[in-house]
Amino acid sequence: MIKVERLNRISRLRYEKIINRCGEKIYPLVFKAAAPVVEDIRKNGDRALARYIKRYEKISLSPGKLIVSKKEIRDAYSNLPGKLLKDIKLMIRNVKAFYGKQLSNTCKGWKGRFGKGYTAGQLLRPVESVGVYVPGGTALYPSTAVMGIAPARIAGVSRVVVATPANRKGKIAGPVLVAADLAGADLILKAGGMQAVGAMAVGTRTVPRVDKIIGPGNIWVSAAKLYVMIRNYSSIEFVAGPSEVLIIADGGANSRYIARDMIAQAEHGPGSSAVLVTTSAGTAGKVRESLNEMVKQSSRKRTIEAALKRYGAILVAESMGKAVEFANKFAPEHLQVMTKNPGDILKSINNAGSVFLGEYTPAALGDYLSGTNHILPTGGGARYASGVNLETFFKRPTFQQFDGKALDALRKPLTELADVEGLTGHGASVEERFKRSKT
Amino acid sequence: MIKVERLNRISRLRYEKIINRCGEKIYPLVFKAAAPVVEDIRKNGDRALARYIKRYEKISLSPGKLIVSKKEIRDAYSNLPGKLLKDIKLMIRNVKAFYGKQLSNTCKGWKGRFGKGYTAGQLLRPVESVGVYVPGGTALYPSTAVMGIAPARIAGVSRVVVATPANRKGKIAGPVLVAADLAGADLILKAGGMQAVGAMAVGTRTVPRVDKIIGPGNIWVSAAKLYVMIRNYSSIEFVAGPSEVLIIADGGANSRYIARDMIAQAEHGPGSSAVLVTTSAGTAGKVRESLNEMVKQSSRKRTIEAALKRYGAILVAESMGKAVEFANKFAPEHLQVMTKNPGDILKSINNAGSVFLGEYTPAALGDYLSGTNHILPTGGGARYASGVNLETFFKRPTFQQFDGKALDALRKPLTELADVEGLTGHGASVEERFKRSKT
Repeated sequence: MIKVERLNRISRLRYEKIINRCGEKIYPLVFKAAAPVVEDIRKNGDRALARYIKRYEKISLSPGKLIVSKKEIRDAYSNLPGKLLKDIKLMIRNVKAFYGKQLSNTCKGWKGRFGKGYTAGQLLRPVESVGVYVPGGTALYPSTAVMGIAPARIAGVSRVVVATPANRKGKIAGPVLVAADLAGADLILKAGGMQAVGAMAVGTRTVPRVDKIIGPGNIWVSAAKLYVMIRNYSSIEFVAGPSEVLIIADGGANSRYIARDMIAQAEHGPGSSAVLVTTSAGTAGKVRESLNEMVKQSSRKRTIEAALKRYGAILVAESMGKAVEFANKFAPEHLQVMTKNPGDILKSINNAGSVFLGEYTPAALGDYLSGTNHILPTGGGARYASGVNLETFFKRPTFQQFDGKALDALRKPLTELADVEGLTGHGASVEERFKRSKT
Repeated sequence: MIKVERLNRISRLRYEKIINRCGEKIYPLVFKAAAPVVEDIRKNGDRALARYIKRYEKISLSPGKLIVSKKEIRDAYSNLPGKLLKDIKLMIRNVKAFYGKQLSNTCKGWKGRFGKGYTAGQLLRPVESVGVYVPGGTALYPSTAVMGIAPARIAGVSRVVVATPANRKGKIAGPVLVAADLAGADLILKAGGMQAVGAMAVGTRTVPRVDKIIGPGNIWVSAAKLYVMIRNYSSIEFVAGPSEVLIIADGGANSRYIARDMIAQAEHGPGSSAVLVTTSAGTAGKVRESLNEMVKQSSRKRTIEAALKRYGAILVAESMGKAVEFANKFAPEHLQVMTKNPGDILKSINNAGSVFLGEYTPAALGDYLSGTNHILPTGGGARYASGVNLETFFKRPTFQQFDGKALDALRKPLTELADVEGLTGHGASVEERFKRSKT
C-alpha cells in the first residue's frame, strides 16, 4: 500500500506530489457556483435561502423554521445519553481552560510613552459577530461546534451564529445541538453548504449578518467562504482542506502507535494525507507492516486505503535535521513528534498547525480533548496562518495621543516627508495647529 | 461642497452611501485580469514578468536588471538630501520603538499545565518570507516601504522582498530605495501592479517566492492579491482601498483643525472619504465654512473637491453616544476623536484601524511619524481586521504533551466522542497506547 522511500533519493516530481498533497479545485467554484447563490440570497433573502436548502439539501423549510427552536434544543438535551453530555462538557471545559490561559498570557491592550512625550499603544477588541460553520450531512461533528464557538465566547464576541445542515427530516443531530448550545451559540441556522455561508455573510430577515465566518467544510463551503471574502461581505479565518498528519519519528518510536495515528488521519476522507518521516529504516519498515495489518481490520478500510495510496508516504531521512526541514517545508496541519526528546525538536518547528509531542500524544487528542483546536490550516497554510485561537476573534487597533510639544517635535520632519510624497495637505494639517489665530 | 446633515434625519439611502463609501469594483478583475497574468508568470517565470513590465509599465528590463543593484542603492544614499535621510531614520526609529513595545507586551509563546497533568501552549513563530508592495508610478512612498518592512523585521521574518514600480528610465526613486534599504529589505524588485504581486506569490528565477504579501495598491494590485490568495499561492494581509478618516468632535473642537484633517485625507485621491460626526451644530457649520475656504487654496484642489463631494459628510448627532455608535458602524481606517476627554470615548471604540486622540493628534501623524502603521483596513474592514502590526507576521501554533496517565484520563471520553462522529480509528489510536504488547 505504501512503500518506504529515502527522502534524499525521491524524484522532484514525487517530492512535489507529497508536499502539494490533495489540491482541491475550489477556484472555479468561486464564480461559477458560489457567486450566483450568494448574490441571490443577497437580493432575495430568506426566500432564496430556503430555495437553495430545498435544491441542494432536499429539505423544505419555511423561513419561520430556518432557526432551531428552543424546544428542539430542550429535546436534544433530554435525549442525549448522560455520558455523552459529560464528554461534551469536558471537551468545552478543556477548550475554555486552554484559551483562558491564552487570554491571560497574550491578549491585552497596552500603551507606552514615546519620542518627546506622546502616548501610543494598541487596543484589544473582539469582532462583534461571528458565524461558525459546522459540517454535517452524513456525519455529525459536535466537536467542531465546540472548537468554533467556545474560543469566540472567551474572546468576548457579542453574537455567535451557527450554521449546520439538517437531515432530510429537517432535524439537526442532538449531540451537535447540545454542544453548540453549551458552548454558547446564540442562534443555530439549519442550513449547509454555499447557502449557509452566503446567508451569514450578507444577512437575511432571519439570519443576522456576521463579521467573520469560520469553520471547516467541503469544497462548496470553501468556495462560498472565498467568494464572500473577496466581495468583502464577511471575513473568514482561512479555507480548510482535507485533514493531514506528519509524523517525525526516531528509531525508538513505537511503530504500532505511528500506524494507528496515520490511520486515524486517513479515515477522515480519501483526500487526507498521512506522512511519516523517520531517521530509522527499521521504524519505517515496521510502520509499513503495521499499516498493512491494521488497515485490513479498519471499519473505514476503503477510505483509509484510498487516502494512504494517494497521499500517504513513509520517508527515511538522513538525519533528524533533514526530517525537521522537511516538516517545515510540508507545514502540516497536525505534526506529531515521536522522538526521545520531542521538546528539542519543538524548538526547530516553524510551520505547523498543532504539534503533538511524545508517544502518549496522538493527534486525536487535539480533535477532541486537549483543549487546543482542530480548526487548523491545511495544505501548507501553516506557513502563514494559525489555527482558530483567540487572535482569530480579536483586532488590535492602534491609538496615539500627542500634546502640542510632542507634535512640535515632529512638525518639520513630517512636513518634509509628506512633501516628498506630494501630500502637502498632510503638512498643512500639522502646521494649522501652530497658527496664532484659532477658531 | 458639503452640506450639514442631521444623522437621525438622513435617509436610509444616504446613510448607506456614507457607510459604503467608495466601493471599488475589484471582483471582476480577479479572474479577467489578474488570473492570466499570474498564471503566465507561474508558467514562464522571468520572461513573462519582463513582458508584463514592458506592456503595463512601458519599461524594458532584462531579467538581470529586475532587481535593484547595490550600486543603485549606494547612489540613492549619495543623492539623498541630508535632512530627508534624518527624517527617514526618525520614521524608522519611531516604528521600531512602537513595535518593540508590542513585541515585549503581547508577543510571546506560553505554556501551562492542564487537566490531569498534561502540558499545552502556543508557540510564536514568524512567517519566513514576506513581500512588501510599495505603490509608485506618479508618486513615491518611502513611508509605505518603512511601514511594511520595519515591523516584519522586528517580528523576525527571515526574508523581506520589496516590489515597487520603476520610472520610465527603469529607476526607482532615491527616497524609496533608501527607506527600503534602511528598514531592512533584502531584495528590491523593479515591478508594479499585477505582475509584481504575481512574481512574489509564485516565485521566478530572480524573484523568491514569499509566504505573505502585504501593502496597499490600486485595484489591479488588489485584484492580484485576491487572486494569489484564493489560489493559495501566497497569503495576504487584506485588500486596502481608498484612504478614510472619520472625525468625532464636540462643541469645543477647533473647526479649522478638523477641516485641515479632512482635506489631508481627501487629497489622497478622489475615492477617499472624510466624514465628520459632531454633537455640535455650531462646529458642523464652522467646519463647513473652513473647508470651503481652505479647499480653494489647496494644491490638489480638484482631487479634494471630488472626494469631499462624493464621499465627504458633515453629520450632526443627537448625542456623543450616537456619534460613537455611528463610528463603530462606519469602522474607519483613521478615527480622530476631538473632544474634551478623548480617552473616555476610546473605551467605547470597537472598530477602527488607528485612533487619534485630541486636538494635537492629526491623522497625518500615523502616516509618518507616530510609529503606529499606515497600512490599515479600509471600507469597513476594521470590523474584523487590524492594520499591519507584529501579529501580521506571526503564527501561533499550538502544542501539547501528554504522559500515559494524562492520556488515560481522557481515554474513554475521547473514544465516545469519536464514535459519535463515526471516527473509530481515532479511538483506536488512543487505545493502542494501552495494549499490553508493544513493538
